[in-house]
Amino acid sequence: MTKENKNLENQIIDIAKDARAAARIMATLSSADKNRALLAIANHIEAGREEIQAENAKDTEAGRAAGLSDAMVDRLTITDKVLAGMADGLRFVAGLDDPVGTLEDSAIRPNGLEMARMRIPLGVIGIIYESRPNVTVDAAGLCLKAGNATILRGGSEAIHSNRILAKIISRGMAEAGLPEAAVQVIPTADRDAVNIMLKQEEHIDLIIPRGGEGLIRHVVAASSIPVLKHYKGVCHAYVDDLADLEMAAAIAVNAKAQRPGVCNALETLLVHEGVAERFLPMAAKALTNAGVRIRGCEKTCGLVPEAKKATDEDWAAEYLDLILAVKVVKDMDDAMAHIAAYGSNHTEAIITRDYDRSRRFIREVDASLVIVNASTRFNDGGELGLGAEIGISTSKLHAYGPMGIKELTTTKFVAWGQGQIRN
Amino acid sequence: MTKENKNLENQIIDIAKDARAAARIMATLSSADKNRALLAIANHIEAGREEIQAENAKDTEAGRAAGLSDAMVDRLTITDKVLAGMADGLRFVAGLDDPVGTLEDSAIRPNGLEMARMRIPLGVIGIIYESRPNVTVDAAGLCLKAGNATILRGGSEAIHSNRILAKIISRGMAEAGLPEAAVQVIPTADRDAVNIMLKQEEHIDLIIPRGGEGLIRHVVAASSIPVLKHYKGVCHAYVDDLADLEMAAAIAVNAKAQRPGVCNALETLLVHEGVAERFLPMAAKALTNAGVRIRGCEKTCGLVPEAKKATDEDWAAEYLDLILAVKVVKDMDDAMAHIAAYGSNHTEAIITRDYDRSRRFIREVDASLVIVNASTRFNDGGELGLGAEIGISTSKLHAYGPMGIKELTTTKFVAWGQGQIRN
Repeated sequence: MTKENKNLENQIIDIAKDARAAARIMATLSSADKNRALLAIANHIEAGREEIQAENAKDTEAGRAAGLSDAMVDRLTITDKVLAGMADGLRFVAGLDDPVGTLEDSAIRPNGLEMARMRIPLGVIGIIYESRPNVTVDAAGLCLKAGNATILRGGSEAIHSNRILAKIISRGMAEAGLPEAAVQVIPTADRDAVNIMLKQEEHIDLIIPRGGEGLIRHVVAASSIPVLKHYKGVCHAYVDDLADLEMAAAIAVNAKAQRPGVCNALETLLVHEGVAERFLPMAAKALTNAGVRIRGCEKTCGLVPEAKKATDEDWAAEYLDLILAVKVVKDMDDAMAHIAAYGSNHTEAIITRDYDRSRRFIREVDASLVIVNASTRFNDGGELGLGAEIGISTSKLHAYGPMGIKELTTTKFVAWGQGQIRN
Repeated sequence: MTKENKNLENQIIDIAKDARAAARIMATLSSADKNRALLAIANHIEAGREEIQAENAKDTEAGRAAGLSDAMVDRLTITDKVLAGMADGLRFVAGLDDPVGTLEDSAIRPNGLEMARMRIPLGVIGIIYESRPNVTVDAAGLCLKAGNATILRGGSEAIHSNRILAKIISRGMAEAGLPEAAVQVIPTADRDAVNIMLKQEEHIDLIIPRGGEGLIRHVVAASSIPVLKHYKGVCHAYVDDLADLEMAAAIAVNAKAQRPGVCNALETLLVHEGVAERFLPMAAKALTNAGVRIRGCEKTCGLVPEAKKATDEDWAAEYLDLILAVKVVKDMDDAMAHIAAYGSNHTEAIITRDYDRSRRFIREVDASLVIVNASTRFNDGGELGLGAEIGISTSKLHAYGPMGIKELTTTKFVAWGQGQIRN
């Protein structure tokens, strides 16, 4: 290891140790303390608008000079609206219930020992994300409310924006009397910093990567710390022969076209062969009107002239675009077998009026959200009532599905005795 | 990789794939199906006593020939009592509530969407353990009740016992009509098998190691699958100056001496300086009567003539023996600082009559069980009302503390709509 890298390593280790020390203090704070900090940060963000946008301009200019696409530069830009959204988001999180210190599963044992599980923060959370700098504020705010310390590492293309946001957050933390090390941004664009961070398992309890599949796979491979993540969302809707077909078409259009670039958007439509003839021409018309292009199986192509022939890759594709794969299946078992083979455990929907099939689909399909007669787009922390989310997990350990404040905590056992000893 | 290793790898991958396929079936079974299998296995264990003990004798003889200690050979031996314990344990697990399919946190969203979290099995669980062959049956039974498939890998010294137990379990599974691949034992003593198993992250969802710190550290280092574990239990009891001193002495003796070889046994006693003079001579007498030797700080040695001087290593030691480290501290903050520095997040106790201190200790100490006025020995799934436990986790993700049936499951989101689409 070169001397420079050694210095970088020491720098990251110091950040991680400071975060651990801050996390111990954070764990003991009241909701009032944490809310005071959230509101102070919101105010400082609004007051610091010019400062923030000046630093942000350095990133967007460098991005343009480096040939980033307009869409990428857009994602990077902190407009007045994005800035207001950050401040409002923090105020919203301040209003959410704080689970820390609450008791669950309380019981009195036969020997009189009173026990319960007490909700506590996870500790130190590392967030690794791509270009949008508002993640810095959103993620820090939610983790703070749950009593955790965070170490944030954004994309190198947003380094100036992230640094100034870190400075602004520190102002709010200091004003509220909270430890500033409870929210830290890795201050260098050096890519080795991430790999060093991912080895600090003694000081960091959880890593949450947010970004494309490439970023996430790199994080999982390099991390010795547990990672909560989803790689992709290959979401299906199965239209049963006992479905309300108007409803099914409306759901397909919404799930595919309302916001095609997100992980809970529909990627493959499965249609029972008993209704394919009635359903597909109608649904294809509605989809085409919404700008969707169809890649179909042979039967689909027979019924929908504008469909292109699908290949095997289409069944596994996460298009994140106005493209939809469509397959005619024999029955629900055939649909569930297709989902088991090609799904990504993210979101799976059935449209049916049949009682038994709705129950079987809910029980037997393995996905972070299984939904009947509604759009896949509802797999979202806000929509499911979690208040705010920090991401969606498609691995089952600790959290499966959207992760809100509660998923940023854990429980310890607590017990109150009157001198009990064990026999 | 040599040809032989390649064959071993293929063999382990086949086991893991078969487990994954079996897990899909297990997840859909009713409690009645699973209980029928548990009871059938219990009956086959009793009916197979001679067979089991004949195979077990091969292991104990080989162990003696290889120079295993008497204590090790004892742990390895399947006596009539151990065998009855296995069968009774399975019947007990059959009687526990089955959480799979139950709903939690149900809510109706403003748009009428009804949502809840449904409890589901984790999937495939790998258990890696040392000599006691009854773990094969206990772990398989608890995982089965939670709807999971298991892959079991016992110590090489118990290979004949584990193989015959696997065969017996298969008989019960077959009789109950359950997939036999839902419980598999790695049939070879080859140590490479463990390392290959720990890389099958596509087919195995969770690894639980049970054994000494060396085994667990090896598993964590080699695994690309999440591991739930604790390395050790360096448990403390803090005797406050406002404690009932008779109660404190009784708890110290119980926590240290009732079963010194387990992870929730007391290792260090911390005593407020205000009561050291009154408490320590009395407590030392009771501890010495129970066969405990004391390693004390300077003040302790001044008050307890039979105490040996403690070194820095004593504060970090997990003796698992009738030895207790004793330190006089200035106050509760001093005690909590000592616990934060030397504790292992396992079990921490305070003995006090003070309301505020009891509350602060509970809130601020970071351990899987924090307990007031009772023995550390209560950190156990059975004692805390979990029914049965598969181990204790001292990492915070997914489970912190004893892991029972519930900790062998997770939740997915489920939602019932009436055609909702997202705006």
